[in-house]
Amino acid sequence: MTTSHAAPGPALAGSVGLVTTRRAVLTQHGPLVLASGARLDHVEVAYETYGELTPARDNAVFVCHALTGDAHAAGWHDGARRPGWWDNLIGPGRALDTERFFVVSANLLGGCSGTTGPSSPDPATGRAYGPDFPALDMADFVTVHRGLLDHLGIERLHAAVGGSLGGMQVLEWALQEPERIDRAVLVAASSRLTTENIAFSAVARAAILEDPDFHGGRYAEHGVSPRHGLKIARMMAHITYVSGTSLAEKFGHARDTSGSDKRLAADFEVEHYLQHQGESFLERFDALSYLHLTRPMDYFDPFVDHPDVVPSTRFGLVSFDSDWRFPTAHSLRIRDRLAARGVAVEHTEVVSPWGHDSFLLEPPGYHDLVRSFLG
Amino acid sequence: MTTSHAAPGPALAGSVGLVTTRRAVLTQHGPLVLASGARLDHVEVAYETYGELTPARDNAVFVCHALTGDAHAAGWHDGARRPGWWDNLIGPGRALDTERFFVVSANLLGGCSGTTGPSSPDPATGRAYGPDFPALDMADFVTVHRGLLDHLGIERLHAAVGGSLGGMQVLEWALQEPERIDRAVLVAASSRLTTENIAFSAVARAAILEDPDFHGGRYAEHGVSPRHGLKIARMMAHITYVSGTSLAEKFGHARDTSGSDKRLAADFEVEHYLQHQGESFLERFDALSYLHLTRPMDYFDPFVDHPDVVPSTRFGLVSFDSDWRFPTAHSLRIRDRLAARGVAVEHTEVVSPWGHDSFLLEPPGYHDLVRSFLG
Repeated sequence: MTTSHAAPGPALAGSVGLVTTRRAVLTQHGPLVLASGARLDHVEVAYETYGELTPARDNAVFVCHALTGDAHAAGWHDGARRPGWWDNLIGPGRALDTERFFVVSANLLGGCSGTTGPSSPDPATGRAYGPDFPALDMADFVTVHRGLLDHLGIERLHAAVGGSLGGMQVLEWALQEPERIDRAVLVAASSRLTTENIAFSAVARAAILEDPDFHGGRYAEHGVSPRHGLKIARMMAHITYVSGTSLAEKFGHARDTSGSDKRLAADFEVEHYLQHQGESFLERFDALSYLHLTRPMDYFDPFVDHPDVVPSTRFGLVSFDSDWRFPTAHSLRIRDRLAARGVAVEHTEVVSPWGHDSFLLEPPGYHDLVRSFLG
Repeated sequence: MTTSHAAPGPALAGSVGLVTTRRAVLTQHGPLVLASGARLDHVEVAYETYGELTPARDNAVFVCHALTGDAHAAGWHDGARRPGWWDNLIGPGRALDTERFFVVSANLLGGCSGTTGPSSPDPATGRAYGPDFPALDMADFVTVHRGLLDHLGIERLHAAVGGSLGGMQVLEWALQEPERIDRAVLVAASSRLTTENIAFSAVARAAILEDPDFHGGRYAEHGVSPRHGLKIARMMAHITYVSGTSLAEKFGHARDTSGSDKRLAADFEVEHYLQHQGESFLERFDALSYLHLTRPMDYFDPFVDHPDVVPSTRFGLVSFDSDWRFPTAHSLRIRDRLAARGVAVEHTEVVSPWGHDSFLLEPPGYHDLVRSFLG
């Protein structure tokens, strides 16, 4: 992975084979002012692009990642064991066709994969922000990515596409800049979390915040991290990303022991699976970033925050029938609120056994829907 | 609360006002042999009784408590702030009418409320069992309560009644002793957990087992306890005990802050509520008991363990339409398996907004159903 500052650099020549991650500094001409009024004096944003920007600059598609995603949406990094997280959707001939579109994918503000976040150095002290990193709002995620688009010289987006948190960001963006996005594709998204959604999120955060190794967010200074809490948070959240049916089909009641040989420690295959999910998450995610990226979802309420905005965007919504994290009712709420404002919006519920995580997979019809929404 | 050893003592004279907790030693004539083959040389069981046993000893109803319940099912302990957990169901004129029935309620083996468990002294060492307490099976819960009935001189039960884990214990009991229980009432119970049920249980246990203060189960010797893990386990489990609808109606999106004043720490009312649930649980529950009482549910598979048993018991099953921990499908599975063996069984799904915890509450029709199942 190479990094170049400031300059967008040439787009990759239609290839999503080996991918370059780029980084831009957004605050060369002044601080970033957040929705809370807090400011960040130095903001960098890490991003990748796939495909070529037309001379008319009218074929850009912005991809917004989900909670634990990152800018690496497609193609292969040198030496990587797996491609980008939406590689099945982005590429030559795929729904986000890189022979046609210039796809931009950027890390979220507050994350831990290149864009400024709590583990980045605070220019005021030279040390990591840690707990001094300001609380974020969905609007701030958008502000940073708007800045990236400006930096890349892209005035209008052919489309913005996102799943889960990414879809929520797309909605916020379309309401923040009602003339900038021609098409918006929101997959398994929400315009307002349920109380139960917030409850799950609250327990995940409590697991981190109350881990003795959290040290009030100064864990890096103590040379530790709240691994226990972050692992448990991830294990719990993972259950909500999949369906009961898919867990049953994948693992059933298979276990290591048999008959009357039973034990308290992990024994069932589903337990080993969740342990693996939790452990591997620790290698790639930061606890403070987890707090900062989950919390804006709890507060998200864009139709209240932007009461009179009527975006020119055409919306395409997808939900999955087995998704119990953001069930179809969430998408219908978005559809109804947009339609009530006279905005063009279509919604389709896709049959899929895999729950919320279906947005990362290929249930029949899903990718074709995204393709058609992109026009 | 007074404690008397060995002797059952006189039944309370029809009153469930102030309650006496009694304790019996079950292993005066030999060790208790568990399903795993492990043995316990000294087992005490704490129990309460309400109502009077008839001279014919034919009016006993055994109440089996759920995961975090205890023997104190009804009436008031001296100075208590709340009555027993099933006080709305047990008492004079109530569904479990103490003017008619002699109700027995006993703590589970492995628990932390008087019956022998991991925090009880190991006769071999004089210290608490801690991690040396043997892994339990649903059958062991029954074995201990069978012993209590023998000790009380009760040959047949008019009925056994239980909710959630308690209902599972009743089912195991009816299959273990097919001629001893005339009527069984199983409320919001299961005969086999789903993979998703096991997954939630696994994360709760992981939160405890991997808390640095767990110390391999020897936390008492270290003068600490895995408070963080136990609290998170309880907070998470609590979400599964209630319905999304009831959380939404009770707490909505109410929060301490308003407008753009947002924070990472607890803010929404539902967060404070879960925090309270977690904190107050620490005052009354032990982490090792939590492990020992949850695990037998994961392994529970009584129709496989007792393949040819046809109990003479008449079964009454109740499930609640908003219960997503043990949805109606669990009760239907029990009904169908029993019916296939020619056992008399009835099932009713009760409409209730409160999810799994409905078994502790009074949704319309529920208590009348229990009353009618009791004949």
